[in-house]
This record gives sequence, structure tokens and C-alpha cells, in this order.
Amino acid sequence: MKAEIITIGDEILLGQVVDTNSAWLGQQLFDLQIHVQQITSITDSEEHILQALTEASQRADVIICTGGLGPTRDDVTKATAAKFFQTELVHNEEVLEHVKQIFARFNRTMPDMNYGQASILANAEVLFNDWGTAPGMWVQQGEQVFIFLPGVPYEMKNLMQHRAIPKLKAFHSAEKLVLRYILTVGIGESHLAESIADIEDSFPSSAHLAYLPKIGMVRLRLTLNGKDLKELNRTADDLQQRLIDRIGSAVIATEDLSFEEVIVRDFVKHNCTLATAESCTGGNIARLITEVSGASEMFLGAIVSYANEVKVSQLGVSEETLKEHGAVSEETVIQMAKGAQERLHTSYAVATSGIAGPGGGTAEKPVGMIWVAVAGKNSVQTKLFQFHGDRLINIERATNQALLMLWNLYRQENQD
Amino acid sequence: MKAEIITIGDEILLGQVVDTNSAWLGQQLFDLQIHVQQITSITDSEEHILQALTEASQRADVIICTGGLGPTRDDVTKATAAKFFQTELVHNEEVLEHVKQIFARFNRTMPDMNYGQASILANAEVLFNDWGTAPGMWVQQGEQVFIFLPGVPYEMKNLMQHRAIPKLKAFHSAEKLVLRYILTVGIGESHLAESIADIEDSFPSSAHLAYLPKIGMVRLRLTLNGKDLKELNRTADDLQQRLIDRIGSAVIATEDLSFEEVIVRDFVKHNCTLATAESCTGGNIARLITEVSGASEMFLGAIVSYANEVKVSQLGVSEETLKEHGAVSEETVIQMAKGAQERLHTSYAVATSGIAGPGGGTAEKPVGMIWVAVAGKNSVQTKLFQFHGDRLINIERATNQALLMLWNLYRQENQD
Repeated sequence: MKAEIITIGDEILLGQVVDTNSAWLGQQLFDLQIHVQQITSITDSEEHILQALTEASQRADVIICTGGLGPTRDDVTKATAAKFFQTELVHNEEVLEHVKQIFARFNRTMPDMNYGQASILANAEVLFNDWGTAPGMWVQQGEQVFIFLPGVPYEMKNLMQHRAIPKLKAFHSAEKLVLRYILTVGIGESHLAESIADIEDSFPSSAHLAYLPKIGMVRLRLTLNGKDLKELNRTADDLQQRLIDRIGSAVIATEDLSFEEVIVRDFVKHNCTLATAESCTGGNIARLITEVSGASEMFLGAIVSYANEVKVSQLGVSEETLKEHGAVSEETVIQMAKGAQERLHTSYAVATSGIAGPGGGTAEKPVGMIWVAVAGKNSVQTKLFQFHGDRLINIERATNQALLMLWNLYRQENQD
Repeated sequence: MKAEIITIGDEILLGQVVDTNSAWLGQQLFDLQIHVQQITSITDSEEHILQALTEASQRADVIICTGGLGPTRDDVTKATAAKFFQTELVHNEEVLEHVKQIFARFNRTMPDMNYGQASILANAEVLFNDWGTAPGMWVQQGEQVFIFLPGVPYEMKNLMQHRAIPKLKAFHSAEKLVLRYILTVGIGESHLAESIADIEDSFPSSAHLAYLPKIGMVRLRLTLNGKDLKELNRTADDLQQRLIDRIGSAVIATEDLSFEEVIVRDFVKHNCTLATAESCTGGNIARLITEVSGASEMFLGAIVSYANEVKVSQLGVSEETLKEHGAVSEETVIQMAKGAQERLHTSYAVATSGIAGPGGGTAEKPVGMIWVAVAGKNSVQTKLFQFHGDRLINIERATNQALLMLWNLYRQENQD
């Protein structure tokens, strides 16, 4: 079954909001064997909405529209959808009561403007919204479904999970899709591709291999399409295993895991623990690790030592070192890593110190210069990086490189 | 001038990657007075790419295509674009030398597969890529431009900044767009809308007001379209001032700033400093603050105390408190905030402790139960939250609420 997502609102087009909704929807729909073929982000103008609805309705079985359902004037999705379906908006007393209750729950009276929220497409089934005031709508026309959801991520996700997905499960698709993943570290995309070229050549026409590169790593995604799920799974397992055998030790995961998930899982398995001592990354490494469910089994904590006084008082960096070599130096970053390891009693610690920018650079220590240290069971490793991005890119790259260095030292010290 | 963005690649549709490129491109193009009208994400199949290119070329002046330029077989953008333009791919020796140099810079030999990277659309001008191996391309046809860029964010951004934007600046548009922002805290979207309804009623037809709600705050975006930039700016300033006067103290910023940027700017202005003591948010508050350029002037550091031992050793939480009330308790979170404030010598500290999930919940302390404390100059404030999201949503909401509580206490104690 094919789906398209239409997101409505200028904020995405102006780049003020990153569209995280669509990625989340893509994952949820994939689990239902519904495959998103296109995501279209448009302005909240009637003309654009009509055009996008028309085009999507010619291609997809399920069309999910997010955004523009609020009570304010810039929200035109509902009125436009009525035009598209050649129907009208009708007042729904049950929805009005529900919206009033939502306001009552927060001890607020409902502003008059919200009466409009009780206007529902005449051909729609209401998806009651317990997480906000704009109701969702489900419009079924023969074998085609249109789902209208608010754009606020929290409301959209809850409405989808609790209202729309149970209804979508009633649909069924003959076309099956099977996926396999291989996460590799330390081998470039094209070298990897050359080393497995003959295996790729021998793929059946139903199989497709995608290369998803990220700093220092490449994720391979193997996709198989067909009708016989059992047969697809057998072929997928076979192809995946042939790739794994060929790629060898660069393979660090054979499931759809993030690098952080691999680190957490492996550290737990080997009873290793981790702390971070972060200056320029500002807690970003700790944040990524703790986003992984189960991180508390291996991650004990972090010292974000943004100020030099905190490097001294909380990590034991010596004042002489700071004076002589500066905060952005190999000496300091080693003391930071060791300080975190000793004070938090962990087997591993990773430390960063650098100039993320845009300010703070000098001729000797320019913006983007970042030291990383990893302290392990038996040794400390350091590396100097010179990035050329903006502040956020420099932070992201330093974070990725720190995790890669941590992983490499960990693997040296903990061979299976 | 109108633009459309086409992103090519299954990973966005499958939800494995969030499309951050488009938001970044939207911002950059807006600064050039080029307005993104649509973002289309499609699979990397020839049929979809041809359809998207055809549709976009009928509507937009500038079409930016990202993704599918790599050397591997799943990358079909170049060959498909050649079909679209009814031209061919030609070998470019200069590009080949450039790609070889990129490999040489990393002390690697170029795999044969990369010879294909030197194949360039016959009608294109090369955008040389110093940040990766896939060259970008610029195709100009009369008043219309097509820009092809790799999908890797780091490469895409650099190619855009250093190669494409200088060329785009040569274009000019008669239609001008002027924006104004108002960031408000603590007033709901519909209450806000009601309170300014008469001002909105009096808007000229060239003006448009958008409401962008987020947890606890609403951002207003005022857009004006027209030909006379001076006149547009005068009207925008006038309308913005009328809104600010009406909304009053709920206005916390009148520029396009994030909440974190407002906090950093205001703390610096009032010589206030901040530390965080984070358990369930895992460094996410520190990360958001330190993403703001200039944060080092007010942010001294964070203690991410994921393990109880770290709460005791690094923040001075008493073992009796942990035994008697547990880590997720008002008593603990107060001691965490005070501990960070005292040990890092800051005027403010914010602390979080809770159960982000999915594991770790009990009947008494269910998943989503999160305590937040803010320690200020004269007082400590606490609040208990019960969220119902998944792990990432709970972390995000706890982070937002912690920043809101910090802001409210800060404002009480530092009136201008």
C-alpha cells in the first residue's frame, strides 16, 4: 500500500522548523507495511493545498495531511479540504464539548475562537484529540483514506498512535517489503562498495542495496520487495550474511541500530561504564548516549566543564596546565578524560575541548580546532581535529569523532 | 523569485533520516529573497525523479535537487537528470583530478568506482566539491536554474555556501518579502489570537500573521509582501509595535530568536550565570544552551548525574535523602539544583530527575514522572510533571519545562 504525506505551513519552507513529523510518520507507516512514496511540504495557501491533495490522491492509497488545523486565521486546511471533497464543514456538538473539556482540564475557559474547532468535514469521522484542541479527521473514500492531523508533533504523534493507527491496521496490502541493515565503521563508502560489488551483481531483481554514509561510518540497507514474506525473509537473511562475511570486522551491527545504541548495548554486555567530560560539545555526547533506552546501565554521568574553573574544581585539571597550554590543548583534554574516569569511577571516559565558533578563535587556535581524548582501561588516546563548519556542525562532528574514538579504543580493549 | 527543493532518497521516506537539509536551504534562500514554495521528498527511482523535476520546473525559478549523486548503484540522480534535460553525461578530466586529490588528502587511493563521479551533465557547470567526492552541478536554462547537490548535510551546506550562493546572488527579484517576529511565553495560542483580533482585522492585504505554538510559548510571524522594501519595512515595524504594545509582558523577544537564545542574551545582560544538574534529561538542557553562540559568557557547566553515586559525589545529594525519598523526588531534585549552584558558583541552577522510560517505571513512580527544580538568587522552585510520551518526547518536554521554570524565576528576580 502506498502513502503520501503532505505537511502544510510556511514555517517548514522558511526553514524555521525542521520537519521531524514526516520521519516519524514514515517509520510508523513502514511498520504497517504502508510505504511512503512522497513527502510534500507546501505553504498554507488554498491553491497549494488543493494542488497537493489532487496530485497525492492520484497516486497514493493513504494520504496524511498535517498542519493548518488550529483556530487561528492562518489555518486554512479544513476549509480547503471541504472544497477538495466538494463537501462542507458542519458543527459537531460532541467535538465542542470535548474541546471545552480540554480547556477545563487546564482550568481555563475556552476562548470564543475555538468554537470553530467544532467544525468538521461533513464526510469525516472525528479523531478526538486528548492532547490539544484541534481534532483530527479521517475521511475514507472507497479504498482511499485521507487523515488530517495537527502539525504540533506531540499532538500529531498521539493522535496517530491512539486514533489513526488502530484504524489503519484494518487495511491490508499484498505487496510486502523486507529490510536488513548492516552498520559499518571505518571504511569509506566507495571502498565498501567495491569490496562487495560481485555480491551486489548477483542480487535478484527484487533486492536493492542502499548506502547511507555518515561521518566515519556507512549504513547499508538491503530492501526486498515481493508477495511471499517467508521467501523474502529467507533471501534477505542469505544476502545479508554474505555481505557480513565479506565486510568482516568493520561490521558493528546487523540490526537497525544507531551508533549510540551499539555502544550502549556493547558496553552493557562487557560490563563497561562510561562518563564524559565535555567542553565544546556542551553535553551533546551525554545527551546522545542517554537518549538510548537502557543507557543507565552503562552511563554514570557527565561533567560539562564549560568554564575553566569547572575544569579545575570538578575534573581536577591543574591550573598550571591551563595557564601553560590553555583549555584547548592535548594536556587539558587528557586531564579532563582522566578526571572524569577517576571521579565518576568508570572504565571509559571521553573528553572534548575546542573552539566551536563563531567567536573565540585565534591565529594559533582557530575556530573548529578541537581536541578529543579517550581514557580506557589501559591507555589514553588523543586526536586533534580541525573542522571548518559553523558552530552546530563543529559540535556535531566533534561528537561523532569522539564516539568513534571511544568505540575504537573500546574494541581494542574488549575483543570478543 | 520562487524555489522548490527536491530531496531524493528512500531514507527520508522510511523515516531513518530527518530532513534537516531542507530547513537549512529554506533559511539560506530566504536571505536571498528566494522563497521556497514546495519541498518534495521522493524515492530514488527514475520515474519519481523525472516526475518531480517536471512538476517543479513548471512552477519554480530555482530548483534544488539533493541526494543520489554518490558513486554507488542506488544513486541514479545524474543519469535521470540527463534524461530530463535530454542531454548526456560527459567525462570531465578536471573533476576526475579533483576527486583524486580529495582521496589523496586522506592518504587513500581512489577506488575505480569513483571514475563515474567525473561524469557530468553535458549542459552543467561543475560546482567543485572540496568536502567530499561527489561534485555538484549548476544547470541554467534561460531564467531558470537547477542546482544538484549531494545529500550529505556537511557537503551540501559547503557546496551551497561556497559555490551556489555566490552564483544565486546574481539573480534578482522584484517581489520583496519582509518578516517580523514576536516570541511570547505563558499565553495560549487562542487567547493570544483573541487579544489581538482587532489588530489583525485592520491588517492591510499585504500582511499575514502566522501562529507557531510550542510547549508553553507561541511565536508570531508577521509577513509582508510587496515591491517597495522601504514601505514594507515601515508598515511591518508599525504593525509589530502595535502587537507588542497589546500583548505586553508576555513578549520575550521581538527578533527571530529561539528561547535558548533569549535566555543566553538576557542572562549575559544581567550578569547572571547558569549551571544544570541533569538526570533524566541527560545533558539535553546543557546541549541546547551551549548551542547558542556566546553561551560561555553565562553558562559555566553541568553535572549530568545519571547514577545515584554521581548525585552524591558530584552534587552533594545526601544518601539519606536518596534512601528515604528516592532519586525521583522533590527533595533530591532540590539538592541537585542547590548542589550545582554551590559547586559551580552560579546565580541560577536548574535540575531534573525523573523516569524518561520506557523502563524503570513503578505504580508509585510511573514512566513520565519528572521533577524539576530551579534554584535562583533568593529561592528554589519545584514542579512535578507527569508526561505520557515516549522516551524522547518525555526528555524534550522536561527540557522545555525546565527552561520555562528557569525563565520565570529569573524574570521574577530580575525585572528591568
